[in-house]
Amino acid sequence: MPEKEENIGITVKKEEDMPEWYSQVCQKAELADTSSIKGFMVIRPNGYAIWENIQEYFNKIIKEKGVKNAYFPLLIPESFFKKEAEHAKGFAPELAWVERTDETEEKLAIRPTSETIMYDSYSKWIRSYRDLPLRINQWCNVLRWEVKQTKVFLRTREFLWQEGHCVYETEEECDKEVYLFLEEYKKLVEEQLAIPVITGKKTEKEKFAGAKYTTTIEAFMPDGKALQCGTSHNLGQGFAKSFGIKYIGKDEKEHTPWQSSWGFSTRLIGAIVMVHGDNKGLVLPPRIAKDKIVIVPILFDKTKKEVLKKAEELKKKLEEYGTIIDDREGYSPGWKYNEWEMKGIPLRIEVGPKDMEKKQVMIARRDNGKKEAVKETELAKRIPEIINEMHNDMYTKAKKLLEDNTVETKDWKEFEKAINDRKLAKAPFCGQQECEDQIKDKTAGATSRCIDEHKKTKHKCIHCDKEAKYNVYFSKSY
Amino acid sequence: MPEKEENIGITVKKEEDMPEWYSQVCQKAELADTSSIKGFMVIRPNGYAIWENIQEYFNKIIKEKGVKNAYFPLLIPESFFKKEAEHAKGFAPELAWVERTDETEEKLAIRPTSETIMYDSYSKWIRSYRDLPLRINQWCNVLRWEVKQTKVFLRTREFLWQEGHCVYETEEECDKEVYLFLEEYKKLVEEQLAIPVITGKKTEKEKFAGAKYTTTIEAFMPDGKALQCGTSHNLGQGFAKSFGIKYIGKDEKEHTPWQSSWGFSTRLIGAIVMVHGDNKGLVLPPRIAKDKIVIVPILFDKTKKEVLKKAEELKKKLEEYGTIIDDREGYSPGWKYNEWEMKGIPLRIEVGPKDMEKKQVMIARRDNGKKEAVKETELAKRIPEIINEMHNDMYTKAKKLLEDNTVETKDWKEFEKAINDRKLAKAPFCGQQECEDQIKDKTAGATSRCIDEHKKTKHKCIHCDKEAKYNVYFSKSY
Repeated sequence: MPEKEENIGITVKKEEDMPEWYSQVCQKAELADTSSIKGFMVIRPNGYAIWENIQEYFNKIIKEKGVKNAYFPLLIPESFFKKEAEHAKGFAPELAWVERTDETEEKLAIRPTSETIMYDSYSKWIRSYRDLPLRINQWCNVLRWEVKQTKVFLRTREFLWQEGHCVYETEEECDKEVYLFLEEYKKLVEEQLAIPVITGKKTEKEKFAGAKYTTTIEAFMPDGKALQCGTSHNLGQGFAKSFGIKYIGKDEKEHTPWQSSWGFSTRLIGAIVMVHGDNKGLVLPPRIAKDKIVIVPILFDKTKKEVLKKAEELKKKLEEYGTIIDDREGYSPGWKYNEWEMKGIPLRIEVGPKDMEKKQVMIARRDNGKKEAVKETELAKRIPEIINEMHNDMYTKAKKLLEDNTVETKDWKEFEKAINDRKLAKAPFCGQQECEDQIKDKTAGATSRCIDEHKKTKHKCIHCDKEAKYNVYFSKSY
Repeated sequence: MPEKEENIGITVKKEEDMPEWYSQVCQKAELADTSSIKGFMVIRPNGYAIWENIQEYFNKIIKEKGVKNAYFPLLIPESFFKKEAEHAKGFAPELAWVERTDETEEKLAIRPTSETIMYDSYSKWIRSYRDLPLRINQWCNVLRWEVKQTKVFLRTREFLWQEGHCVYETEEECDKEVYLFLEEYKKLVEEQLAIPVITGKKTEKEKFAGAKYTTTIEAFMPDGKALQCGTSHNLGQGFAKSFGIKYIGKDEKEHTPWQSSWGFSTRLIGAIVMVHGDNKGLVLPPRIAKDKIVIVPILFDKTKKEVLKKAEELKKKLEEYGTIIDDREGYSPGWKYNEWEMKGIPLRIEVGPKDMEKKQVMIARRDNGKKEAVKETELAKRIPEIINEMHNDMYTKAKKLLEDNTVETKDWKEFEKAINDRKLAKAPFCGQQECEDQIKDKTAGATSRCIDEHKKTKHKCIHCDKEAKYNVYFSKSY
């Protein structure tokens, strides 16, 4: 029998040192490692499994909507970036250029996003209104040479994402689907990851480089920072004009189409860790967890054989939930509980000789630690109920965090205090980029997250005192 | 009603100008485009759908064997390449380095393969025999700066692939799984893609840079070239030693583990096009096709409504086969037949008023054009049968191509003739690298494909007349 190993849990408290806590959870739950290369991460199997489940869920959604997956080149020629001026300016500082000896070839950069390389192809593929709408999505890696400190999932030079790129005949269709995909992002994050979001348009300053407008879903992290979880852009006709995308309409005349793009990334995994994790480690939202259940058999020499047999029987019965058994020898049940709690598996089933006598098992929920005895005959009914209850409780808790930290502010003093207190400050705002720059400077980094599109404001701008255009959420952010 | 469009098929014959034919099929079946960037391809939705189906099939296989997916950084530091001397030498000419202004950072190259970056992590993760076997796979893009002429799927600077990287306690386990994954590759290519392969070890000259030995599956293309379709390497202990991967065994002593790696790429899609395609276009192997059936309703004004209703009913009934309907107006049935034949959809179902009267449909097979009338009540039974018959016929035809082009050669004259005739020449060979270099020179490029591991040889080496070590397959190749 192997020697017992010490069970080293998370050594700091979430509420006391969140950066260190986050880093430990990601490492000890084996989600991701910082790599030997500055700014890069290794996504380990436990982290990648979450990404695979997000992919599976989202692929199903978009395929139903007529989106097809494809793959475009990793490297983008310099001339493509230059075609759309705003886009070029926005991404210039983040590009990593490739060094090749052949000087006859054009300079190439690793993609930070794929608008330009995709639209070069679109200009060849689109001829007639019959080719529209064109809806293509790509799952890939992108590189942005950020200089800030690395934080796995949340701030890395390379990350994985999906980028959808659609082309439409009319502005109306384009607008409609920009919000359609935003709505799907909201559903993914709220209904699968149990993270509530606020949604709305970005201000002019914060919109995507080259877009007509950008919409976003923003989540609130317990460290008082907002996290942009997905954006959906109406690109207008700018890229189409720059890349020569045209179509012959039903009217037999040439037209310029409208375009959208929309993306979310592996940063969603970071949001799961931040929002739901606790001092024992990761808490996986049950709907997105690949392995939703771990069975820990309680083993005594006398009854070992029957209990293991029962555990196998339960595993088979609960296969659809991705059920695993921890039957390793040389570790106590308590040690195993700690390990699986650190790794965030939503439900633990304990089964021992006493449970067997009663024809029941004990089910422990990871989020609140509550245990309940469930008769074996009731399992098929009760498990999906518990999963839903757990999801709802996790969502409600996160929603409370968001609401408790959202502050309506009407003057600069209130606003400054809210930002200093690491709140999400809702404030009337003039919409001017210059004014927003000054707010960012004066607050050491608060940025606008999104416009509240539901309610107009009659107040004056929080900062410049000019007439406010709308209410805007401001906060520190990732 | 839109004007009729001309249906432009493949304008050259496969047997007359195969390179041009290949390029037209890939483009017109909308599998892939050459990109504006030299050496790069765009994988279009029809091509990517094949890749997604290959991924889905193979993920299921490897997950059953305990392999987990993960993701490692795109960029690899120069020092990592240098750690394993043979590996460094092998990949040096293919690397694309990244240009960054910060001179304090180490030089980074885009991954041509991920052994080094993965094993750096492995050295941190592996401590004890309990961590072994470790089986990780990655689906990703890789870059090899090939200088030869671009050919989508078959020869591009960037391609998509999977790379599995496993670590074992013993040489025996490692050997066993090297052949296990090779066998799974063979199954994938033969049983899903209907392409027969020969399998065996590579010679010393052709083995993977840094490996103890390499095994391969090789297919034979109708242009007389072999195509390496997947390789599985026993890496020995070389990488483990270079990267400091060690484990404490059950004996409480420190040991060096054994490693394997194995990969196949999007080049498999090129093999499908080459082997099965004909002068009408692409022929998709039915098991790997996402959309296996296209329904073309035969529409007349009087019966249009009922026929379309029937088509929808059939589509629903045959949903599991990925069935689509082509009910576009303004195109004749014949035009549609041509289009779907070009795109390679395995089965076409024609349904018109006369068929409806007889409660039947016409099913046309893409590979041989054969049509049969099938009663609606027989469809559920007959469709899977036809799919299997089609698969078997395609495999048999490709197998005949391989066998008809395999030539046993016993002296240099026979060998040279076989190579000149673009055959796969089986020849006794001494195994010496120098001798193989000379064979390549004298035949303008013939390389050894793999060793025949089934039968020993008693003959002399085809080239140098020394004692032959084994029989080896030689040919021109991609």
